[in-house]
Amino acid sequence: MPKEKFALGIDFGTESGRVVAIRVRDGEEIAAAVVPYPDGVLDEKLPGGSKLEPDWALQNPRDYLLVVEKGVPKVLKAARIKPEDVVGIGTDFTASSPLPAKSDGTPLCCLPQYRKQPHAWVKIWKHHAAQPEANRINEVGRARNEEFIRIYGGKYSSEWFFSKLLQVLDEAPEIYDATDKFMEGADWIVWQLTGQERRNTCTAGYKAMWVKGQGFPSREFFRALHPRMENVIEEKVGNAYYALGEKAGGLTPFWAKKTGLQAGTPVSIGNVDAHVAVPACTVTQPGSLVMIMGTSICHMVLGTEKRMVEGMCGTVEDGIVPGLWGFEAGQSAVGDIFAWFFEHGVPDYIHREARKLKIPHLAALEKRAAALKPGESGLLALDWWNGNRSILVDVDLTGMLVGLTLATRAEEIYRALIEATAFGTRQIIEAFESKGIRVEHLVACGGLPEKNQLLMQIYADVTGRDIKLAERLQTCSALGSAMHGAVAAGRAAGGYDSIFEAAEHMAHVQKLTYRPRPEHHEVDNRLFQEYQTLHDYFGRGTNDVMKRLKGLKHEQTA
Amino acid sequence: MPKEKFALGIDFGTESGRVVAIRVRDGEEIAAAVVPYPDGVLDEKLPGGSKLEPDWALQNPRDYLLVVEKGVPKVLKAARIKPEDVVGIGTDFTASSPLPAKSDGTPLCCLPQYRKQPHAWVKIWKHHAAQPEANRINEVGRARNEEFIRIYGGKYSSEWFFSKLLQVLDEAPEIYDATDKFMEGADWIVWQLTGQERRNTCTAGYKAMWVKGQGFPSREFFRALHPRMENVIEEKVGNAYYALGEKAGGLTPFWAKKTGLQAGTPVSIGNVDAHVAVPACTVTQPGSLVMIMGTSICHMVLGTEKRMVEGMCGTVEDGIVPGLWGFEAGQSAVGDIFAWFFEHGVPDYIHREARKLKIPHLAALEKRAAALKPGESGLLALDWWNGNRSILVDVDLTGMLVGLTLATRAEEIYRALIEATAFGTRQIIEAFESKGIRVEHLVACGGLPEKNQLLMQIYADVTGRDIKLAERLQTCSALGSAMHGAVAAGRAAGGYDSIFEAAEHMAHVQKLTYRPRPEHHEVDNRLFQEYQTLHDYFGRGTNDVMKRLKGLKHEQTA
Repeated sequence: MPKEKFALGIDFGTESGRVVAIRVRDGEEIAAAVVPYPDGVLDEKLPGGSKLEPDWALQNPRDYLLVVEKGVPKVLKAARIKPEDVVGIGTDFTASSPLPAKSDGTPLCCLPQYRKQPHAWVKIWKHHAAQPEANRINEVGRARNEEFIRIYGGKYSSEWFFSKLLQVLDEAPEIYDATDKFMEGADWIVWQLTGQERRNTCTAGYKAMWVKGQGFPSREFFRALHPRMENVIEEKVGNAYYALGEKAGGLTPFWAKKTGLQAGTPVSIGNVDAHVAVPACTVTQPGSLVMIMGTSICHMVLGTEKRMVEGMCGTVEDGIVPGLWGFEAGQSAVGDIFAWFFEHGVPDYIHREARKLKIPHLAALEKRAAALKPGESGLLALDWWNGNRSILVDVDLTGMLVGLTLATRAEEIYRALIEATAFGTRQIIEAFESKGIRVEHLVACGGLPEKNQLLMQIYADVTGRDIKLAERLQTCSALGSAMHGAVAAGRAAGGYDSIFEAAEHMAHVQKLTYRPRPEHHEVDNRLFQEYQTLHDYFGRGTNDVMKRLKGLKHEQTA
Repeated sequence: MPKEKFALGIDFGTESGRVVAIRVRDGEEIAAAVVPYPDGVLDEKLPGGSKLEPDWALQNPRDYLLVVEKGVPKVLKAARIKPEDVVGIGTDFTASSPLPAKSDGTPLCCLPQYRKQPHAWVKIWKHHAAQPEANRINEVGRARNEEFIRIYGGKYSSEWFFSKLLQVLDEAPEIYDATDKFMEGADWIVWQLTGQERRNTCTAGYKAMWVKGQGFPSREFFRALHPRMENVIEEKVGNAYYALGEKAGGLTPFWAKKTGLQAGTPVSIGNVDAHVAVPACTVTQPGSLVMIMGTSICHMVLGTEKRMVEGMCGTVEDGIVPGLWGFEAGQSAVGDIFAWFFEHGVPDYIHREARKLKIPHLAALEKRAAALKPGESGLLALDWWNGNRSILVDVDLTGMLVGLTLATRAEEIYRALIEATAFGTRQIIEAFESKGIRVEHLVACGGLPEKNQLLMQIYADVTGRDIKLAERLQTCSALGSAMHGAVAAGRAAGGYDSIFEAAEHMAHVQKLTYRPRPEHHEVDNRLFQEYQTLHDYFGRGTNDVMKRLKGLKHEQTA
């Protein structure tokens, strides 16, 4: 039997980074370490004390380095892995998380003269202060009929790369001027580890308007956005992008020493946390929809042809696996809606019952909700507590609940909320299928599936599709990164030659499958028709009451 | 100074009867007694043990007699009133509360051979088992274009007289045959006290299709309803109806002895609890809307001309005070919606705050809700938790809540529910005014106003009208009955010659007036526009989702 080989995956998250050591032969996780970011999310003030405006969310890039420095040795030690048995390293990142850097890679926020300037730091996905810039981008993009408007389902987000870059230029032109490289954290960390500035096609395609074979929008577009941005690509962003699973370079001697790994260990091109999870969920072919289910849901599916689907988050060739189109959609609140209900909607009698049965109150609620048949509550909700991402792409939509009577009980509302989020997913599936992108079954990962059997069963009933669960629900991204590390190494060096091969060996789903119950599915079909009618009435401009109420709310709280 | 005179009012309610002694000069309540009905509401089984079907609600007529027998002596004693100083007695009743009786007035349920037959008892307003009969009445009424369809705003209720009579005939023809008199409890009690069978125009007009100057629908109508009902009016109902405030007769020697009153003491024609409250709220002229605010709201207003207003509960000439048209509308759930929310929607943090502040949790909720500006929550509700009475007359409509976000809090929902019921009242006011029936200010009585300052202020803000409160919020009906007792006596006998005169002296409102706040009214106008759009969308057939959800619920629970 040959000696075991391992790949490392490093998943850079919102509050911490996770390092895993994965056995290349079968994907077994041998060891893992989580390293919290000392500075966490900076959303009130900078480490130096400078106050931040509302809606800001930053990170300190030094924290990323700390994850590598502390996490890798810990994992190697725990797994008793020798450095020579690590075939490769892969990384993934939250996105879009751009940072301004000097030409040598030094982030501006690490230079004393820029330390107190918020725009010198990494802006993470939660940073929502670039909405005016996003609005301008969409306005100009639509007026010029730019391709990216279609790629992104009609709207470019304030969370994404160029919204944040434009905000720097708008609000801190001196930082813009001082920036030599404006780049994703995903690419910056790979540059640090390998000394090679090799940017990845996934973040560029899903967050930065980059299109395979075409590159970025034209100079004219950027000039229309801001006269000083005309040459932004050449000057600060770059035109060279590298495919997922390619080797970015070998680990530098500096980082080899820091981590205890061998210098030259292959490091793959960076990736996005959501997208890297897809092959880790065993999905490398069309027909399966991956749902990363947590506070929100990210939906990803592969297709053989370019299709413009309503309300997608992104449509990127080779964006998830090579040779296929990667389609991404999303629901902006799912677990968040349930958390809202647990906090604001659970009455005394549920707490009393929970105490009596000696179970958590959420379990008491779920027990009652599970005893209901679909349609039995007479309730129907629109799941827009945090707006609608796909397919309407409208942050100003809000939640709705209809069918309330004097007999309505808390568990009925809870079940209606679960159903509503399942209808939201079905709406996305139908948008895919209406454009010929097959969705035959679903694979779930993330934090929600393992705690919520009722939820998963309802998703199966509502969508009429089998749902499988990833083997390691909560660490798919880290596994996916390790898989890409193995691919960067290649078969000759103990890894794999493609992500397809890697997925075949390293990715697994659980035995448990949630299957739709036909009698429930039939009733859910009727409820879904009602959902669609209300979805279009409130969501497509027949009655913009949600927006007017939100506008009035802002007036009254201004 | 002349010797003080007194009038007695007896208010027959749902669970008990109330007797009050009122000073004729100024309406001061000198004493009161509440006598609970020993049998209460019979909704599960008869006193003999026979089980009742769901939706049944009966009373025992012996309980009414007990109220007189026990309550009157108690009040006389407490008030130290001499029998000769009682000028008259008035009564009011819940309606429609029909009972089947023999020709001598004996209720069938008091005869041993009928005691076990549920149809032999009094069916009260809560009895909802005659819906199939109400449906048939409406079908036949509409096909024949009967006047009563218009009088009752498009729909005759299952709660009313002929629905219940037809149910007897449908389900217990032997009881129908044995019945010599089918009559309202309101008229039966007056018959008992005076020996005179004199039925009142108020119950007849609001509940039994009777129209002043025209009487009942034709024999053809009743034959179309059921062949055996052709001559129901002549055979079992009677054609003679007496105006409110008229003297029905003098107290019989039997009842004089039982109560300690003088034989021959004038007893006025019976009345309905809601309608008799109107003059007791000081309202005897057009322009003021009386709201009896409790679990539901009953709205009453006077007008000089016959008008057919959408969704009225009734339109009756002289139905409230002589010489004017009495219009009645209603909201089927108001206090009931808040009670629902207190039970099912109040989360832990409200309870915790209440404990901290050492106040009831409802007070904690109200305190937070009162701190909000209109529109600040971003929420809007349709107040149809128990269907919509006026103006849509549709029991199958349900509640709706829109504008929910992850930031929505319990007190915001509570306030939105209050606002929704206020919008429901405003919708009724606008229906009145659209037909030229003036509503210049509001007078409230009932159980809700005194506990809920926020509620009353929101009603003033939403309707843009001053609201006054009756002096005795919860005993208006008993006071109104006493006023009618004084009118039955007449001025010469120490009472008054008209209800106008009686109201001038005996009825009062509190000093406190809720006045609309212009800056709130302006915002509420905008919210009300949104309410109206959704009201029509969900309530007038554009999208019958509420009915389909209710239908599905019934299928799933059948």
